[in-house]
Amino acid sequence: MQKIESPKNEQIKQIKKLQQKKYRQQQGQYLLEGWHSIKEALNNRPEQIKLLLVEADYLPLVTALANQVSAGPTIEITARVTETLSETVHPEGVFAVIAQQETVVTSAEQPQPWLVLDRVQDPGNAGTMVRTADAAGFAGVVFSEGGIDPWNSKVVRSMQGSQFHLQVLQVPDLKNWLLAQRTAGYQLLGTLVDPKATDMRAFQPASGAYALVLGNEAHGMAPELAAVMDVNLYVPIFGHAESLNVAIAAAILMYQLQLN
Amino acid sequence: MQKIESPKNEQIKQIKKLQQKKYRQQQGQYLLEGWHSIKEALNNRPEQIKLLLVEADYLPLVTALANQVSAGPTIEITARVTETLSETVHPEGVFAVIAQQETVVTSAEQPQPWLVLDRVQDPGNAGTMVRTADAAGFAGVVFSEGGIDPWNSKVVRSMQGSQFHLQVLQVPDLKNWLLAQRTAGYQLLGTLVDPKATDMRAFQPASGAYALVLGNEAHGMAPELAAVMDVNLYVPIFGHAESLNVAIAAAILMYQLQLN
Repeated sequence: MQKIESPKNEQIKQIKKLQQKKYRQQQGQYLLEGWHSIKEALNNRPEQIKLLLVEADYLPLVTALANQVSAGPTIEITARVTETLSETVHPEGVFAVIAQQETVVTSAEQPQPWLVLDRVQDPGNAGTMVRTADAAGFAGVVFSEGGIDPWNSKVVRSMQGSQFHLQVLQVPDLKNWLLAQRTAGYQLLGTLVDPKATDMRAFQPASGAYALVLGNEAHGMAPELAAVMDVNLYVPIFGHAESLNVAIAAAILMYQLQLN
Repeated sequence: MQKIESPKNEQIKQIKKLQQKKYRQQQGQYLLEGWHSIKEALNNRPEQIKLLLVEADYLPLVTALANQVSAGPTIEITARVTETLSETVHPEGVFAVIAQQETVVTSAEQPQPWLVLDRVQDPGNAGTMVRTADAAGFAGVVFSEGGIDPWNSKVVRSMQGSQFHLQVLQVPDLKNWLLAQRTAGYQLLGTLVDPKATDMRAFQPASGAYALVLGNEAHGMAPELAAVMDVNLYVPIFGHAESLNVAIAAAILMYQLQLN
């Protein structure tokens, strides 16, 4: 097994560049950190793992799993390399270079809904929404241009490995993507912070074939998207809060729609 | 109107100390920042406002409201004072010293539920839970010893002014507080990440008189609390996520229970 001891190693320098969006997009890869998420990758999507970088103490755990699957090679690293690569306060010394996902067409037989983020900005919100969409049994989460990059390290940390359970896409033209989904038989559900929209309690999707769109934290959904929705939903407010956090609204809606 | 120009002013130094938990507890006060939250305080709980600190450009807005209510005095400050007091990247130059709330007994006629945080640690989670509890029409949120301080500035930022719409309490002995609530006729609802607990879909509270307890991010509810609950609920997971973020689980449960 290859071992890299120095943080100044050329390969480590190249991998560290994946902390920048520009290089992630050039490479089509991102850097994943932490045993929990990497275990999810090994168990669910080993083909996406291009490289594993592991300190000695985690090596037995990692190789026991990695040897059974089609993951890329493992390199042993030192604590000094971990310090260079890590973006967390208490790093575990386990990293992976992950290939960003390709569009995967889901089966039309048992359609599952999609969650769509229209320019959501906050990394914690976006990552949490992926985790919640996973729990709610969604097919995937679509990120738009102009919002946070799904492979930003803070987003990825909040996903907690859920990106290996569902599809995560980034699409250049959200309206086009949504209209194509409608042609494929999906209902388009928007969300508005407006009591004149449809109370979520009064709506039931026709099937699991729907796309639920949540908008930007400050500005909500773009009006040109709201205009093409089949329905725009709102979450009722019983108290005096003006609105809900976007990740919270998404969770309440996803569960409400799935349980209806 | 008094004007303070220097960040080295003795009163400003004392106010800045409220950024530390020790001084907040000594004084029974906390420092609030930003026009949106301060407007909520002026509109809903002016008697809690001990002092307003405002830069010139916000003065007309603030005094127009403050003159109509029983808020404490207003002091004009400079941008240099704002820089010293602010904990945000783009400060608005509007601050208030707020008295922490006293226990308020709510009417027993139309009972509203309580949200209870058993050692929740993350400030964003805790603040968001207060905001969501407000939206869901809860009476208040109870913070326990051993969890994040409710008046930590990050918690307060995430509350977005909801602390002026409901009660926020910190209690030294959570179990005692809960048992006293039960004596007063409240149902005690715990939460567990365990499919052997009661599926939230199978449970309906007898009335609005209940306390819903959410646990620590890593360890969940303390077993000694779970043992005294009337029922322990879990949020069903349809996908492959191991669990939900605690603020997300709280939101799904609060809305599910309120809509049931």
